[in-house]
Amino acid sequence: MIVTVTPNAALDVTYTVDSLVPDAVHRARDVRRRAGGKGVNVARVLHSLGADVRLIATAGGVTGAEVAAELGAAGLAAELVPIAGETRRTTTVLSTVDGSVTLLNEPGPELSAAEWAVLVERVHRRAPDVLVCSGSLPPGAPADGYARLLGGGPSILDTSGAALLAGLAGRPAVVKPNADELREVTGLTDPVAAARELRRRGAGAVVVSLGADGLVAVTASGTWHATPSTVLTGNSTGAGDAVVAALALGLSRREPWPEILRRAVALSGAAVLGPLAGDVDLAHYHRELELVAVRARPEQEL
Amino acid sequence: MIVTVTPNAALDVTYTVDSLVPDAVHRARDVRRRAGGKGVNVARVLHSLGADVRLIATAGGVTGAEVAAELGAAGLAAELVPIAGETRRTTTVLSTVDGSVTLLNEPGPELSAAEWAVLVERVHRRAPDVLVCSGSLPPGAPADGYARLLGGGPSILDTSGAALLAGLAGRPAVVKPNADELREVTGLTDPVAAARELRRRGAGAVVVSLGADGLVAVTASGTWHATPSTVLTGNSTGAGDAVVAALALGLSRREPWPEILRRAVALSGAAVLGPLAGDVDLAHYHRELELVAVRARPEQEL
Repeated sequence: MIVTVTPNAALDVTYTVDSLVPDAVHRARDVRRRAGGKGVNVARVLHSLGADVRLIATAGGVTGAEVAAELGAAGLAAELVPIAGETRRTTTVLSTVDGSVTLLNEPGPELSAAEWAVLVERVHRRAPDVLVCSGSLPPGAPADGYARLLGGGPSILDTSGAALLAGLAGRPAVVKPNADELREVTGLTDPVAAARELRRRGAGAVVVSLGADGLVAVTASGTWHATPSTVLTGNSTGAGDAVVAALALGLSRREPWPEILRRAVALSGAAVLGPLAGDVDLAHYHRELELVAVRARPEQEL
Repeated sequence: MIVTVTPNAALDVTYTVDSLVPDAVHRARDVRRRAGGKGVNVARVLHSLGADVRLIATAGGVTGAEVAAELGAAGLAAELVPIAGETRRTTTVLSTVDGSVTLLNEPGPELSAAEWAVLVERVHRRAPDVLVCSGSLPPGAPADGYARLLGGGPSILDTSGAALLAGLAGRPAVVKPNADELREVTGLTDPVAAARELRRRGAGAVVVSLGADGLVAVTASGTWHATPSTVLTGNSTGAGDAVVAALALGLSRREPWPEILRRAVALSGAAVLGPLAGDVDLAHYHRELELVAVRARPEQEL
């Protein structure tokens, strides 16, 4: 079983407007609300692929109740750790005219030490085949919270900044920063050099998302660059979570890296075509699986 | 007593970010939530001036309960008409770097005919000295909803588009469009010509907000232009509501127009300096009252 952990879950509210213009008044034409947070999105993608997945997340207050109700309605296997604080909201603004996707994220409620301990206990009790730790750490969580969650088994860590750096001590099998996040934590502009730096610090493999340029993976067995067959426009919010879903599936099946990366790129594109984060266009996914180019390359070439 | 009516009340959530950039991810540094909707803001301003004011609004669901709780905590006299739908949210994004104020408004829940009838009955039962009708009509309200609410007594109508045009049949004493709203409903670019057109259609007086250029009032007793002493930067969201609060106070006291406009301009500036819509900087208000320039002018001059 794959388990995703979302310590800072959210109710994601998506507004559709003609065009988001700073300093203007907008009337949302469409308002959609559902459970969010990166780990929730990863679980949603895996669920739509028929994978055996369970999500563990925090939930509190009326917003937490709405998160719980939506997860139930979506048929996702979810284990929610009750917290005293009110679950945060994330707001996604989709502009139909220019296709921009703008996110406004609340920091989230502060977790008590006891609440954090329950979360860790729940995760470790499940002893998952692959553990996925996603998103920001909530206020109140220990700085090395992800290192404590990663329990020695195969795991993927998808976070940024200090939470990513401290999490490397837990020796995640894979970390998945984007190019900006990678530069931020290493100070290096070359993605391969930066990825090697994260491997030195504890990551087993580093998969870097390069947006329209696909993915580069720096692993113990080689470096690969996987590129999509076409550039897509749509809602890119959940693309990174779809990549993580593909990595988790590949790890759980012990697939070779080129195969994992092919699925990750195809699923990422399928997420861009999905209306909301966590949605994937399965027809695109299956078509694109045949078209992704994966090339092993000398590290200097990138 | 002044009564404000907000048929489409809201929970207003204000996010503070460094700079709102379309297509980017933002982490809100500060999240504040309180009851909103134009009529609620007007009541808040009047309450802070010590005026005898009561607000009547709709409220439903958990968001409506949060609106009710916040109004109680703020000490505002509020009469909430329960509705089956969930009260909407409005999101205000304040950018500290460039000072921009961006609004995202949900359309709001649909009102049933019975809920609308209760709202009208509550308003008419109060028989206010001045009735203020503010904001958009919720889905399900009759197109001429404001005309039905305005009951013959002194009244102010602050809305836009079709709701404004249809509301003129209720013969409001004052309407307060901004220049854009006035152009939209009349098709005329000259504010004075457009204001005269609205007077022909039923408005007793038309007060047009011109942003940093102050206010122009076209009334039965003359045309005036009131200008602030200085251009302010801040949160302009509640400036229009502060103008309406001043107009309501002036009508209830039967003050002459130049005095009403002086207060309206001063209070509008005080609202720009207030952190949230409905807040006013009373020190600025009292200073600025002495500094506003009000000039009667031939209509051709503007």
